[in-house]
Amino acid sequence: DDETIVVIPGDGIGQEVVPAAVEVLESLDAGFDLVTYEAGDHVAAERGTPLPAETRAAVETADATLFGAAGESAADVILPLRRAVDSFVNVRPARAYPGVDALRPETDLVFLRENTEGVYAGLGRRLTDDVATGTRLTTRSASERLAEFACRYLADAAADSFTVVHKANVMGETDGLFRESVFDVAADHGVEPDEALMDAFATRVCLDPTQFDIVVCPNLAGDVLSDLAAGLVGGLGLLPSANLGPERGLFEPVHGTAPDIAGQGLSNPSATILSAAMLLEFLGYDEDARAVRRAVESVLESGPRTPDLGSDATTSDVTATIIERMSTD
Amino acid sequence: DDETIVVIPGDGIGQEVVPAAVEVLESLDAGFDLVTYEAGDHVAAERGTPLPAETRAAVETADATLFGAAGESAADVILPLRRAVDSFVNVRPARAYPGVDALRPETDLVFLRENTEGVYAGLGRRLTDDVATGTRLTTRSASERLAEFACRYLADAAADSFTVVHKANVMGETDGLFRESVFDVAADHGVEPDEALMDAFATRVCLDPTQFDIVVCPNLAGDVLSDLAAGLVGGLGLLPSANLGPERGLFEPVHGTAPDIAGQGLSNPSATILSAAMLLEFLGYDEDARAVRRAVESVLESGPRTPDLGSDATTSDVTATIIERMSTD
Ligand SMILES: CC(C)[C@H](C(=O)O)[C@@H](O)C(=O)O
Ligand SMILES: CC(C)[C@H](C(=O)O)[C@@H](O)C(=O)O
Repeated sequence: DDETIVVIPGDGIGQEVVPAAVEVLESLDAGFDLVTYEAGDHVAAERGTPLPAETRAAVETADATLFGAAGESAADVILPLRRAVDSFVNVRPARAYPGVDALRPETDLVFLRENTEGVYAGLGRRLTDDVATGTRLTTRSASERLAEFACRYLADAAADSFTVVHKANVMGETDGLFRESVFDVAADHGVEPDEALMDAFATRVCLDPTQFDIVVCPNLAGDVLSDLAAGLVGGLGLLPSANLGPERGLFEPVHGTAPDIAGQGLSNPSATILSAAMLLEFLGYDEDARAVRRAVESVLESGPRTPDLGSDATTSDVTATIIERMSTD
Repeated sequence: DDETIVVIPGDGIGQEVVPAAVEVLESLDAGFDLVTYEAGDHVAAERGTPLPAETRAAVETADATLFGAAGESAADVILPLRRAVDSFVNVRPARAYPGVDALRPETDLVFLRENTEGVYAGLGRRLTDDVATGTRLTTRSASERLAEFACRYLADAAADSFTVVHKANVMGETDGLFRESVFDVAADHGVEPDEALMDAFATRVCLDPTQFDIVVCPNLAGDVLSDLAAGLVGGLGLLPSANLGPERGLFEPVHGTAPDIAGQGLSNPSATILSAAMLLEFLGYDEDARAVRRAVESVLESGPRTPDLGSDATTSDVTATIIERMSTD
């Protein structure tokens, strides 16, 4: 049977960059079907919910999903979708590309972010008008699942070790359990992780990102620190991500809807096309994934470039050139 | 009556940089008494606790405290001491100095960090061997107290507005209450704050720190984002901080014990001496505070410089030169 890929453009530039990535996927001679569904603010306006039941159901059964971005409703769209694919890890590579201005051009990191719990467990309560609590949840099973993935990832990446980032000096019970679980699994695999406190990591990665390679961290730490890394490589326009579950995956650029430039056809499709490359790899189309990645890198290096990278090419120019370079590769 | 200043060197380079700052304070013709107390790992080793009761009691009644750094026991020392002065705000200026290599030399930020609650409320629990929870606490009163301070701070800093950083899209109840409380107080003062999500702030501050000026944020966000700013200005060696309460203050460099260089007399005393300047200002010695700050800036600009800034001066060289420049100012 052909694989089914669900495609959800969402809001803002999602409506430009996802179609661009679809063009790239369609240019391949691969055996999958692409089906488009809706989500986001524009859906909420019409239907009262940003995430219609049929979109969620489609993601729950698709082999993989490519998602663009959602506006105000982002958390109400993306968090349920991550759950819909039972995603236990958010893989966020953050590297600088030749040809693109970067604050730290030597940055080459991959964040493996816990993707189910922490402050994302949804356990907030307004106790009174004046008091609110939010419960961070950490389980050994989620931490171990992430750590098992990290150890397998090391092998694929030909790396020896990873860095565990946490704040166990303050969150002794939750991040303490996270840390302990990850170290236990690592020991079973003969891996000796480094570790860094979340705040110290923030300083150190700015001073010298080459100190780090693969970074394993709780949910909120991964959210903030991968966005920090985005700042070091020159903006959010370039970072792809993969939300991986045991059977399905959900792939999305790290950037948002960019309302200031949406609708003009000038958005940078690179992060979404790189997310599509991660999707291809997940489905086992390794050759195609490599071809897409190489073409994106080549275009980042030599142009055409969209305005966020200082030039004036359109989303279509960039996409067409990427497709061209894939075939002449 | 003379003011009493408690001085706690702590561990590692705390034993070098605090005495340096004491020399600076003693060189002034000001009417306060300096009394030294102990805390940190070296105390824990001898006495079973890193924070002896007499140290805590002294901080509780002193007009101000200058603290260096603590090692493994840092959280068990500094968090109780912040409570001992009823500190509701941690003021963390992060600016680049002429003459010091900085990733973003145009950085000039002040973080006003909530200092009593959030994940620092100490509400972690290990429920079973495999499950832990930690409760973030947000109260309107703590958020308002911080916001009132921020509005007064604006006036002193001749600034119009501040940026509220939060993650209310995920932590809707806790950061939602924080955000709402800060905006309410701001409105009462005729201030219209900007806002940024914590993750977006991390990217944006790297891309262009001049977008921000005064940043008001919850406890953990302040911890991580001010350390990120430290990375932008070139290391932790330079950042001072003030933990302010209604009557007392606790002043400390943002850096830690630096075990790799401790004991050689080569540590950079600037952050601690700048913390002492914040202490002087808190006690009303505004002229002295300015003189100390100017002298530190002059030495950062023209040397002598310690090894962390690429040269080979000692802690004493730097301290002596700072004192000299203060008197010839
Ligand atoms: C939109 C938001 C809920 C989301 C997150 O916090 O995970 C986003 O910041 C991200 O990183 O994908
Ligand atoms: C030592 C630790 C408890 C402390 C904190 O998290 O506040 C430190 O990182 C700081 O920022 O002063």
